[in-house]
Amino acid sequence: MKFVLTGSSGFIGSHLQRFLESRGHRVFTISRGADLKSMANTLKTSTPDIVIHLASCFIAEHKSTDIENLINSNILFGTQLLEAMRTCECKNLVNTGTIWQQYNGNKNNPVCLYSATKNAFEEILKYYIHAENFRVINLKICDSYGANDKRGKLISKLIESLKTGQEFNLSPGDQRLNLVHINDITRAFEIAALLTTQCVSQDTSTNTYTAAADVSYSIREIASLIEVISGEKLNVNFGSKPYRKREIMVPDIMDPILPNWHAEVSLEKGLKELIHGL
Amino acid sequence: MKFVLTGSSGFIGSHLQRFLESRGHRVFTISRGADLKSMANTLKTSTPDIVIHLASCFIAEHKSTDIENLINSNILFGTQLLEAMRTCECKNLVNTGTIWQQYNGNKNNPVCLYSATKNAFEEILKYYIHAENFRVINLKICDSYGANDKRGKLISKLIESLKTGQEFNLSPGDQRLNLVHINDITRAFEIAALLTTQCVSQDTSTNTYTAAADVSYSIREIASLIEVISGEKLNVNFGSKPYRKREIMVPDIMDPILPNWHAEVSLEKGLKELIHGL
Repeated sequence: MKFVLTGSSGFIGSHLQRFLESRGHRVFTISRGADLKSMANTLKTSTPDIVIHLASCFIAEHKSTDIENLINSNILFGTQLLEAMRTCECKNLVNTGTIWQQYNGNKNNPVCLYSATKNAFEEILKYYIHAENFRVINLKICDSYGANDKRGKLISKLIESLKTGQEFNLSPGDQRLNLVHINDITRAFEIAALLTTQCVSQDTSTNTYTAAADVSYSIREIASLIEVISGEKLNVNFGSKPYRKREIMVPDIMDPILPNWHAEVSLEKGLKELIHGL
Repeated sequence: MKFVLTGSSGFIGSHLQRFLESRGHRVFTISRGADLKSMANTLKTSTPDIVIHLASCFIAEHKSTDIENLINSNILFGTQLLEAMRTCECKNLVNTGTIWQQYNGNKNNPVCLYSATKNAFEEILKYYIHAENFRVINLKICDSYGANDKRGKLISKLIESLKTGQEFNLSPGDQRLNLVHINDITRAFEIAALLTTQCVSQDTSTNTYTAAADVSYSIREIASLIEVISGEKLNVNFGSKPYRKREIMVPDIMDPILPNWHAEVSLEKGLKELIHGL
C-alpha cells in the first residue's frame, strides 16, 4: 500500500514510517510547514491508498500565548490536509485522536484545550465525511512509550533519572496511565488503515476505536516496576509537586478497542528493553 | 447591563448595538482585527456583564482558498476571545450559532464547511464551560432580514430587482426559508444575555436555543408575497440556476425555541417595511 503521513518527524511518526516501510509499504510525508498547494502536490504525485494524519501540537496546560499554535497545528493544518485530499479525490484517512478528549467519562468535557482542539477537528472531519464521502477511522491512542522518545514524557524521564541518579520530583503519583508500547501503536495504525479502506459507515461514532492496553498502572507502580527490573533504587520524590488541575486519575477507555488488534508488549517487557537494551 | 460585542460592524451586529443602547445598556465592541491582548484590554476596561460573540465569516460553498479565513474567523478569533475572557474572569457568553449546523436533521452532518467551523468552535467552548466555569448560551439563528442589509442576501436582492426591474436568476425556488426580522433577532440576543447570567448547567445541549419564526416560506411564496404587497411583477426567472449541492429544502429547527421569546414581526409586515418604508 501507499501511505501519506503527517507528523513523521515526531516520536510515533518516525517509528510508524520505519515500521510501514519494513512491512513493504511506500510512505510519503507531508511536513508541518506544508501549505495546501504543496500538500495537494504530494497527494497528486504519490496517489496514496490512505493518509495517516498524526501531526499535532500537544500542550497539557496551555498559556494564552499557545492559542494560535494549538488552533493552527490541530485544526487549520488538518483542514487544509482534508481540503487538499478533496481536490485530489484521495478520501481515505486515519485520524489520530486521544483518550484525553474526554474527562471523567464525559465526551462533552475535554481534559484540556489541546483535547478540545482535537474534538473541534473531528467536527470539521464530519463535513468531509458527509458532504465529500471521505472514509475515516479515528484511532484514539493512549500514552505511548519506547526507544528514542525525545518528548520528555514520564517513562523516559524516570529511566533517565535511574541512569543519572538525578532527583526527580513528582506528584503524589496515584494517577493511572494506560501505556502502550510504540511497536503496538505502529501495528494499530496499519490495522486502522486497512479498516479505513473497507469502511463505509458515515456514523462517526462507529468509526472511532481505541488502541489501549488491558491494564493501567499508577505512576507509583511504574516506578516500582522500574526498580524491580533494574535492581536499583529511583531517586524520586512523590508528592513534591501537586497534581495537575485536571489530572486524569483513571484513563477513560470509552470507544471500542480497535478490531483485530491487541497490545502485545507488556509494560514489563517494554521497560526491560528501555533499561537493559534489546 | 454592560455588553461587549464582536461583529458589531455586520448587519446583525450594527442593529444589535443600536438596539441594546436604545434599551439603556452600555455596549463596548471588539473588532475583527483585535488580538488577545487588546481583547483583554477591552474586557478589563469595560468589565461587562456579558459578551455577545456574533462575528463570523459566512461562506455557503467554500473554495480551497477560503479555508484559512474560515478557521481564523470562526475558530481562532473566538478561542482568543474565550481565552481573553478567562484571563479577565469575565465568563458570561452568548455564542451565535445557526440552524445550518445540521443537515437533514443530523447533528453530525454540517451543511457546509462554515457550519462545521461553527460546530468546531462549540467543542472549544465546552472546554471553557467545564474547565473554567463559563456560563454560555448558544443562540442559533435562522435567516435574518431587515433594513440596511448589505449582505446581498435573497430578500434584499428581490427587493432591489423589484425597484430596478433588473432580471434576477434563481434556482427552482421550492426551498423554504425561516426568515426572522432583525428586530426580533436583536430582542432574542437581549433575552439570551439575561438567560446566560442565570444559567448554571454545564450540559451544552440544554444551553442551546433557536430564534426561529413559526412559519417557513418557499422562495416562490416569498416572491409572490412581494408582488402582492408591491402590486408589481418581479422579473425573476425561477429554475434558471440549479439548487446548491447541499440545498436545505426545509429548515431544521432542532433545538428548543428561546424561552420568553417569540418572533413578532410577520414576513408580510417585514416586507411591507422594506418595500414601502416605515
